[in-house]
Amino acid sequence: MQIKKILIANRGEIALRVMRSAREMGIRTVAVYSEADRNALHVRYADEAVCIGPAASAQSYLKGDKIIDVCKKLGVDAIHPGYGFLSENAAFAKAVGEAGIVFIGPSPESIRIMGDKLTAKAAVSKFNIPMVPGTPDAVTDITEAKRICDKIGYPVLIKASAGGGGKGMRVVDHPQDFEEQMQRAVSEATSAFGDGSVFIEKYIISPKHIEIQVLGDQHGNIVHLFERECSVQRRHQKVVEEAPSSVLTPQIREAMGESAVDVARACNYFGAGTVEFIVDENLNFYFLEMNTRLQVEHPVTEQITGVDLVKEQIRIAQGEKLSFRQEDLKIHGHALEIRVYAEDPANNFLPDIGRLQTYVRPQGPGIRVDDGFEQGMDIPIYYDPMIAKLITFAKNREEAISRMIRAIDEYQVSGVQTTLGFCKFVMQHPAFVSGKFYTNFVARHFTPQQLETPFENEAQLAAALVARLLIQQKQTEAVPVTQPVNAGQRSWKKNRL
Amino acid sequence: MQIKKILIANRGEIALRVMRSAREMGIRTVAVYSEADRNALHVRYADEAVCIGPAASAQSYLKGDKIIDVCKKLGVDAIHPGYGFLSENAAFAKAVGEAGIVFIGPSPESIRIMGDKLTAKAAVSKFNIPMVPGTPDAVTDITEAKRICDKIGYPVLIKASAGGGGKGMRVVDHPQDFEEQMQRAVSEATSAFGDGSVFIEKYIISPKHIEIQVLGDQHGNIVHLFERECSVQRRHQKVVEEAPSSVLTPQIREAMGESAVDVARACNYFGAGTVEFIVDENLNFYFLEMNTRLQVEHPVTEQITGVDLVKEQIRIAQGEKLSFRQEDLKIHGHALEIRVYAEDPANNFLPDIGRLQTYVRPQGPGIRVDDGFEQGMDIPIYYDPMIAKLITFAKNREEAISRMIRAIDEYQVSGVQTTLGFCKFVMQHPAFVSGKFYTNFVARHFTPQQLETPFENEAQLAAALVARLLIQQKQTEAVPVTQPVNAGQRSWKKNRL
Repeated sequence: MQIKKILIANRGEIALRVMRSAREMGIRTVAVYSEADRNALHVRYADEAVCIGPAASAQSYLKGDKIIDVCKKLGVDAIHPGYGFLSENAAFAKAVGEAGIVFIGPSPESIRIMGDKLTAKAAVSKFNIPMVPGTPDAVTDITEAKRICDKIGYPVLIKASAGGGGKGMRVVDHPQDFEEQMQRAVSEATSAFGDGSVFIEKYIISPKHIEIQVLGDQHGNIVHLFERECSVQRRHQKVVEEAPSSVLTPQIREAMGESAVDVARACNYFGAGTVEFIVDENLNFYFLEMNTRLQVEHPVTEQITGVDLVKEQIRIAQGEKLSFRQEDLKIHGHALEIRVYAEDPANNFLPDIGRLQTYVRPQGPGIRVDDGFEQGMDIPIYYDPMIAKLITFAKNREEAISRMIRAIDEYQVSGVQTTLGFCKFVMQHPAFVSGKFYTNFVARHFTPQQLETPFENEAQLAAALVARLLIQQKQTEAVPVTQPVNAGQRSWKKNRL
Repeated sequence: MQIKKILIANRGEIALRVMRSAREMGIRTVAVYSEADRNALHVRYADEAVCIGPAASAQSYLKGDKIIDVCKKLGVDAIHPGYGFLSENAAFAKAVGEAGIVFIGPSPESIRIMGDKLTAKAAVSKFNIPMVPGTPDAVTDITEAKRICDKIGYPVLIKASAGGGGKGMRVVDHPQDFEEQMQRAVSEATSAFGDGSVFIEKYIISPKHIEIQVLGDQHGNIVHLFERECSVQRRHQKVVEEAPSSVLTPQIREAMGESAVDVARACNYFGAGTVEFIVDENLNFYFLEMNTRLQVEHPVTEQITGVDLVKEQIRIAQGEKLSFRQEDLKIHGHALEIRVYAEDPANNFLPDIGRLQTYVRPQGPGIRVDDGFEQGMDIPIYYDPMIAKLITFAKNREEAISRMIRAIDEYQVSGVQTTLGFCKFVMQHPAFVSGKFYTNFVARHFTPQQLETPFENEAQLAAALVARLLIQQKQTEAVPVTQPVNAGQRSWKKNRL
């Protein structure tokens, strides 16, 4: 079938991202929006746009039934869910299909299987996918637990079955400490969750988060598009991503790619998906989970492979076969992505919502900015405070880093605090530059005092305003030859720190 | 040596382009500017900026001595001339060297040799470079001329030695017409230029303009970076460029690359240079001339090779060896560039100078915009009215074209007429899409009536203003569910025609 009209069940940069590819394919687009997003760019960009409810996501972007209604009324063929919101909701994907609309993503069954750790584990068990060594089931018996620890080797991690977000977790470095820690973990879990059972697994000391992009069609063909490294995280939130990873060897890359394809095969996957692995210092890799949707960080893969992942998603949803085989895919150059948030790094990264008084994107070779804002817009308090994804690509990692620093310096934002300065800190940090950084990078290396110039927001704003005034009003007085212009006019390079 | 501070003896997008690469290399930048460019972006982007005179180029950007003075006063190590202005001025390059400053470009001698058709021809004569068949010297004798024509075959072109810009040129299709046409050409040349001598050469019926990018270091290493096709021209001015060409075979590409390297070798070339060829329908290629500088259209080569040509220029000027060999260079994907001018295609492409009331660049994957303007700025009347270069790149030509059309639709410009609509016409034309287009494309295919919607400038402006007002002022009334928003809000996609 040929998709003629797509509804994008999302907002912000990803809604625009999807619409751009759709438009290049000659497909009409429908935006949905909440009352808070009335003036958002994705609403203006779409061919049609429909308000589906109040600001709160639960009353708008998560209203699957309303979205399906819009599709029926406007003759929409297919829904692209973006990421977040309804993108990994198997029931929504099912309802979409039952309404005779194409869901641009995997089958509801694939989403369901990979949406739960235990069903995912069970599904991949017949394939030879490396998993972090540990107990297959919850344990409470200390003797049995200790026997397992001796087998997998210390340090080990004790995790409450009912836990989450780091709660009820304990690291044990030495066998002699195990008994005491296990007792504490069980009693902690019992009092916190009413369930004392725990899992035990090998504790990876210096873990890297490396994920593999896969693409599968509806005819059983699955390929991988190499890895993305996303080890720079803050509270389990990725902040810097890159492709390829600076540490993988071609052999490990191939092995991880094959494992990822196996994981996809294990759940009869089609569409774009991501298989996440944890990688230790010796490049042993272990399956974490599969994300059954487009990732925030997909652009770095697009840059190094030349593949437009959104277009491939659409083609796959139309029932087309993949137009390339594994051996056709090659890595060209290096790409980095930083997530620019309206957050204050000096204040524990608290969201800093407000109006983008100044908003000028960096430009030039090797730069891509995916965002959903323009100057003068407000960042709504109701959603994720990401302003933009800034992507740089270059011949090699060193050049991509220097380009990212240049781009960060060039980015002009005032009105809200952003994570740009923090990202510049990451780019310049020896651990990041060397490639020897792990998921604890931020906790280990960052304190707000390390930001080179802490947020001269007032000065920035003033400088930007002056520069803008100068543009509007032509100056007529002559400046003597060889007289450098004043700092006010040259504020650009220092504008964003 | 290590260059620490570069003065860019240019303005507009190319000055910014050079500064961006310099900044990524940790090199400080100095801008020079005329009084008309006081508020230009290149002035704000540079670390230091110096006014060198009034608006007229002859009193500012062409004032080589003043520019060298600035270098001495500010401790500048090297000058990048960009394109145009002083970039192919051998005397300036020589004066720069004599002042102890590095000229980022070839030697004055290479510039001199290639700056003149006759010395260029003489220099390459010892290499086996294909030239358009014709008389080596000027002729006046009809019998001798006819003998030559019979040898090279009809049609032939008779060109006045002293002519230029198409003056004193005649095409002869059949031998029986030759005598009469030759007589007319000679008498026309005599009366127009006071010199009746003419050259005769084979007339290429459907010529393509295809050029080869070369890079040479100061140690005798020269490579080529494949071709750019620039056949879409208006009055010998390139308007659309692409890489690779849609018609070359790998064999012809290699042969042209080798010829281009030979041309560079013939004048001991180092730096970035471009060897231009004329190519006929049977893919025979003939040397036209060599441009001894960075070209306007260099970005398409950067996109398909991953090489930052400006950084390579700087490294070569520092005396470094090329870091890659010919076999390391590969073509990845396809890139297109259009030149966006402040010109009115409906009015014979006359410059349409004014203020950029609305100026919003397209974004998203595979888009690069190199420009020197931002919203609210005036386009000065003193210089070339190019607003921007819009570059798209993608997996293949078809995708690069659909991306360009999307990007053109997304570009929002009001306040001046632009060539965006004209470029969209080119992208959609069957001849361009098929690859069967020649340097006569515009004359043959374009009339202003063919522009799909002729310049709804007033409507555009109104729509853009409304959209912008809507951003500033929050609307509070509710919009009923499944009510498509009105056309005013959805103006983006139709905003720029």
